[in-house]
Amino acid sequence: MQSQTLINYSLYLADNSLILAQRNAEWCGHGPVLEQDIALTNISLDLLGQARSLYQYAAEQINATNPGAAPATEDSLAYLRDVYAFRNCLINELPNGDWGQTILRQFFFSAYQFLLYEKLKQSSDETLAAIAEKSLKEVTYHLRWSSEWVIRLGDGTEESNARMNKALDELWPFTGEIFEPAAFEKAAAEAGFGVDPATLKNAWMEKVTDIFTQATLTVPAQGWMQTGGKEGKHSEHLGFILAEMQFLQRAYPNAQW
Amino acid sequence: MQSQTLINYSLYLADNSLILAQRNAEWCGHGPVLEQDIALTNISLDLLGQARSLYQYAAEQINATNPGAAPATEDSLAYLRDVYAFRNCLINELPNGDWGQTILRQFFFSAYQFLLYEKLKQSSDETLAAIAEKSLKEVTYHLRWSSEWVIRLGDGTEESNARMNKALDELWPFTGEIFEPAAFEKAAAEAGFGVDPATLKNAWMEKVTDIFTQATLTVPAQGWMQTGGKEGKHSEHLGFILAEMQFLQRAYPNAQW
Repeated sequence: MQSQTLINYSLYLADNSLILAQRNAEWCGHGPVLEQDIALTNISLDLLGQARSLYQYAAEQINATNPGAAPATEDSLAYLRDVYAFRNCLINELPNGDWGQTILRQFFFSAYQFLLYEKLKQSSDETLAAIAEKSLKEVTYHLRWSSEWVIRLGDGTEESNARMNKALDELWPFTGEIFEPAAFEKAAAEAGFGVDPATLKNAWMEKVTDIFTQATLTVPAQGWMQTGGKEGKHSEHLGFILAEMQFLQRAYPNAQW
Repeated sequence: MQSQTLINYSLYLADNSLILAQRNAEWCGHGPVLEQDIALTNISLDLLGQARSLYQYAAEQINATNPGAAPATEDSLAYLRDVYAFRNCLINELPNGDWGQTILRQFFFSAYQFLLYEKLKQSSDETLAAIAEKSLKEVTYHLRWSSEWVIRLGDGTEESNARMNKALDELWPFTGEIFEPAAFEKAAAEAGFGVDPATLKNAWMEKVTDIFTQATLTVPAQGWMQTGGKEGKHSEHLGFILAEMQFLQRAYPNAQW
């Protein structure tokens, strides 16, 4: 029971990082300037690295639970699960939109990951604590980088400000899900190795308010929020992401470099 | 040897219809008006039906050649071959562009298929002759429908004329490949069951010139032409089409409705 919670919780953390990495990677070679193209691609690589560590850990737990079955691996978890098995928040599977929308999502999610990993450093599970500590250094940079961009675009030209407000309209209804605990998050928090995201919400709102003030953007009212991703109820976008991302392993099972 | 030519030739005809059907199907629910959405979706279905008949016939030939192997089926040929095995002309895998570009491609390809199937009706191979005869009725309609649209848009508003000229710039370099015979087309023509597409080019140019004149569009000079699809050298677009189209069979092998 507790091991199933640990598996689900690790997969949740991994799926968020993997799907956001995949989306950001679409910008590779298409960024507005070379330096920022490289910055966002590096963020993708960081997130992919976090996902790998977490999938490896989830695979260990799965294999310990099912000693007779075909072993799970980081690859099987990333490439051979279908939509309903993915637990990522819906915000991470949304199409990139323009540069401003990509930046704003990164800011929203990095601000959450920063607060999450800060707490997860104290997890009673040593592996999760170690992954959190390593990831926190990366996410600290992601948060600074995306904060600076939000300020630059929000407090920039009329055009960039208008685009940030449009991005905000798109993304805001997807921020609520992040802090609404799924059953496995509550159970993980009670067991002492996970974090109840509801406990992060005030600090996240403070950070958003601070950056938005500098960016001359207005924090919207809470309003109605999308939800479902954590329970595997996804938008149509995730299916297209998986079709592309999983093609190689699906077409050439167990292919090796 | 001759049976391999028959297989390749059937797959070539089938792949063209399947990939064009797949592209047109992307318009389903997105057409400019409901009646035309339905018209294009019906053309997709016609092309898909042609592809099925041709894949079934190719599978028969393949299975007769390899009695011991796992049997090929219409599904395995459509869903389990990778990019390099597809023989479709590059024009059919190009992104749809706007409505005008989709229409112009359909016109170019229907004009070719019309001339092709008229000749293929006299194929020494009874199955190919029968498929050609049945398909010709459908293609006759596709050609009339797309011709009318080319005239309507070319000889329409300034905006629609400009868009058709833009579409023409995109598509024209992909028309040459259609009439450049691949080795298997030459062999199929020599064996009496196939058509050398070079023999169709003059009639195709006449048809294009006739419709373009009514559409106040100018037939471009021949110029440099793209090529490679018939030999399995495809653009990056085909990989994305297959990733999406083949996901279900790749993820759930032998799935049944």
